[in-house]
Amino acid sequence: MEFQGSHILSIEPFERGDIEAVFDVADRMAPYAHRRKATRVLEGAILGNMFFEPSTRTRVSFGCAFNLLGGDVRETTGLQNSALAKGESLYDTARVLSGYSDVIAMRHPQEGSVAEFAVASRVPVINGGDGSNEHPTQALLDLYTIRKEIQSKGKTVDGLRIAMIGDLKYGRTVHSLCKLLRLYKNIKIVLISPKELMMPGELVESLREVGHEVIISDHLEDNIQHVDIAYSTRIQEERFSSPEEADLYRGRFRLNQAIYTQFCEPNTVIMHPLPRDSRSAARELDDDLNENPNLAIFRQADNGVLMRMALFALILDVVEQVDKYARDVPWYTSGRF
Amino acid sequence: MEFQGSHILSIEPFERGDIEAVFDVADRMAPYAHRRKATRVLEGAILGNMFFEPSTRTRVSFGCAFNLLGGDVRETTGLQNSALAKGESLYDTARVLSGYSDVIAMRHPQEGSVAEFAVASRVPVINGGDGSNEHPTQALLDLYTIRKEIQSKGKTVDGLRIAMIGDLKYGRTVHSLCKLLRLYKNIKIVLISPKELMMPGELVESLREVGHEVIISDHLEDNIQHVDIAYSTRIQEERFSSPEEADLYRGRFRLNQAIYTQFCEPNTVIMHPLPRDSRSAARELDDDLNENPNLAIFRQADNGVLMRMALFALILDVVEQVDKYARDVPWYTSGRF
Amino acid sequence: MEFQGSHILSIEPFERGDIEAVFDVADRMAPYAHRRKATRVLEGAILGNMFFEPSTRTRVSFGCAFNLLGGDVRETTGLQNSALAKGESLYDTARVLSGYSDVIAMRHPQEGSVAEFAVASRVPVINGGDGSNEHPTQALLDLYTIRKEIQSKGKTVDGLRIAMIGDLKYGRTVHSLCKLLRLYKNIKIVLISPKELMMPGELVESLREVGHEVIISDHLEDNIQHVDIAYSTRIQEERFSSPEEADLYRGRFRLNQAIYTQFCEPNTVIMHPLPRDSRSAARELDDDLNENPNLAIFRQADNGVLMRMALFALILDVVEQVDKYARDVPWYTSGRF
Repeated sequence: MEFQGSHILSIEPFERGDIEAVFDVADRMAPYAHRRKATRVLEGAILGNMFFEPSTRTRVSFGCAFNLLGGDVRETTGLQNSALAKGESLYDTARVLSGYSDVIAMRHPQEGSVAEFAVASRVPVINGGDGSNEHPTQALLDLYTIRKEIQSKGKTVDGLRIAMIGDLKYGRTVHSLCKLLRLYKNIKIVLISPKELMMPGELVESLREVGHEVIISDHLEDNIQHVDIAYSTRIQEERFSSPEEADLYRGRFRLNQAIYTQFCEPNTVIMHPLPRDSRSAARELDDDLNENPNLAIFRQADNGVLMRMALFALILDVVEQVDKYARDVPWYTSGRF
Repeated sequence: MEFQGSHILSIEPFERGDIEAVFDVADRMAPYAHRRKATRVLEGAILGNMFFEPSTRTRVSFGCAFNLLGGDVRETTGLQNSALAKGESLYDTARVLSGYSDVIAMRHPQEGSVAEFAVASRVPVINGGDGSNEHPTQALLDLYTIRKEIQSKGKTVDGLRIAMIGDLKYGRTVHSLCKLLRLYKNIKIVLISPKELMMPGELVESLREVGHEVIISDHLEDNIQHVDIAYSTRIQEERFSSPEEADLYRGRFRLNQAIYTQFCEPNTVIMHPLPRDSRSAARELDDDLNENPNLAIFRQADNGVLMRMALFALILDVVEQVDKYARDVPWYTSGRF
Repeated sequence: MEFQGSHILSIEPFERGDIEAVFDVADRMAPYAHRRKATRVLEGAILGNMFFEPSTRTRVSFGCAFNLLGGDVRETTGLQNSALAKGESLYDTARVLSGYSDVIAMRHPQEGSVAEFAVASRVPVINGGDGSNEHPTQALLDLYTIRKEIQSKGKTVDGLRIAMIGDLKYGRTVHSLCKLLRLYKNIKIVLISPKELMMPGELVESLREVGHEVIISDHLEDNIQHVDIAYSTRIQEERFSSPEEADLYRGRFRLNQAIYTQFCEPNTVIMHPLPRDSRSAARELDDDLNENPNLAIFRQADNGVLMRMALFALILDVVEQVDKYARDVPWYTSGRF
């Protein structure tokens, strides 16, 4: 896979070597993300941060990643785009907006829209989420987090044991993660969900096809006993016909410190794509886990910045120049990461 | 016309020499806009990009132009300005906001508001559109595009033959373009519109006054045969009392590749202020023109960045210093412009 | 008070020495705020400008202050935060967002929310207003303005004579100012308001406790005769049960040039936290005061940038390095401040 000048629209084209290449660059971005150094390698470059659907954290994460490489960010934060209302095609929007920036990160509510936009764009486009379709940087940061967390325990993604918990039918991130895990070897995947919210059958089949062990269950405690990662998800309320229908499933698989202590192996890593639902009726991950050092959910969010920095550096072909443009950081930064 | 420290509120004060001065600076901005070089001449300067009415492309174009000169952008993207709702005068808003930045680009739905704001502002203000009144950077970029496109064919604006097509009554850009064309010599202007959407009589008179030839028609094919530029416009639906009234005119003068081939001289340049209406009922410029090299509509949008860079450089008096602060561009930029 | 790495949530912890320290730094920021010099001391640092409630001027003021120190700004401009709607706790929002930036300025409609956010934040947080609770940078810039204005007349805050006029019940800024004035000596405070909108009793008591003279009245002209500062406020319409109820008080204490000339001592300084209500029914400060050189309301707004620069420099511990990273300003800046 050639990164220079390429769109990142989906995780489908990524092979194992591509993923490792991105992760290596992400590792090299850490001193900059953690403010031990600063770089101005992209000084004068512009990110078009085109969020046609609001998403504060993803938008800010992309913007920060670009700033941390020294670049500027111009953005839009919602469907205020009156041009679309006046009958403008996505082709025209793409032709015009891609004249303004060096790379575009784009979120749009409509499936396939980002790929359609990319065809007409004159600069590389990174998909920041197109409806329920793809969100490749989230998938990559999830796998990057898994690798980093278990590496510190002397393990590798090959041989991983992972539980995915909650709404496995509508959760976009677990689908993408399953696709990425197909590229690795000898993985045990425990799928814990209500029967009505099971992982789609073709995804389960595709995991078994490559030789992975897949266990399907609707019971939590028995199934989180022998895993390295417990990946919890929120009930995707917005995909149900009513909040009442979502209520049938909310709060079904709650992980808290007591259950963790009783059932999980020590050092089982807890992940979640966020936002987690902390309302009393939901609480898929209880607040009493917040001090548990194996709760990796905020390190996971932090890794999003590393991942986006890595993709920008690869696409704009500056990986080898980041250090050349490095500077000291003169301001207070202690105790953050 | 003195640019340093001046407001740009209207095209009225521009004389031919002023326009040529702006265009010369715009030409000099091209290496920066096209990422062959970067400059930090405005590093530390702040643009107040005050869009009290949403307009993604104009807002982003102003912001990018300022970033490309090395400056920062602070902005607002809609009438979220609760201060106005609390009874604040435009005078107060201007006094306060002009304390924050070095120059302001402002759009506002109300005619005359930007000029009123400028009176109280302590920094130069560029009008980014005030209702149906003025949008001087659009007028300048249109004329700049005409000049650039026909220059490459060995022609000049003096002696130009241009057709303006569509909603000539409500289209702000064609009105402004007519005013600018008065400054040039020996121009033939063909005005093609429904009878109900004709160019206002006083504008027609003012063109004839300076000796230009004006032809008025409601028929397309016969009238685009001997022109250098076919400038198409969208039916300004938002100005009609109902969408149904706009429907009476939408789709009346469609230009597509077949008509172009049959009726136009080779190399007739097609322009449009964008957005073009690509819905099936409208399509004033058909998608089948997208591969036609004479379709200049996206080069026209690109020129908006050059024009805004030129105005910022002139107003802030850094034209002669842009190159002094130039740097190499270390990132991937190929194939964009 | 230790500034390095600290949150600024309230004015309560400020002692007199702390205030003087901030004001000294603010004075040193003036050459940068006034574009006589530029600095890149914070180049590569990111402000998270998190406005979960719209406030154009405060948001832009924070952002400009950070830009003027050389830093970048990522921001949000309203409660578009769908994560909260999906049940995310403020704790989670804070943990995630604080991974993106070096310091956060935050406004939120709910009292106490910013302090709650700060507990979970991994970077320093400045309260930009949490409902009717606190807005410490406004309080500091008010006092800074008072000091600066009367210093130029050979006076000090000790011994100050100040009238506060208007809605003293709901006006957050006058409450905070009273708290700060407790730290100074021998102050005369004249409180002029409708009986229904009087300054809360405990604040009056706390002023008298430290030996200040407090006069309470519902009559304007008699009571602005012997003051150094006339601090006018807007009727906080949004806190009343209906606009009609607010109408009972609006326009009750109007200061205009005729009253100023007849009753005030020469050089009495006029202040207002802005926005002032310039609708005909209100006009607490008449437009005919706009040319009065003692109308300090726009200098007061300008001082907000100095104050926020000072706090950023103190919190991020770069006060002594601002000048080291200074550069010349090559662009046009004359006549602004």
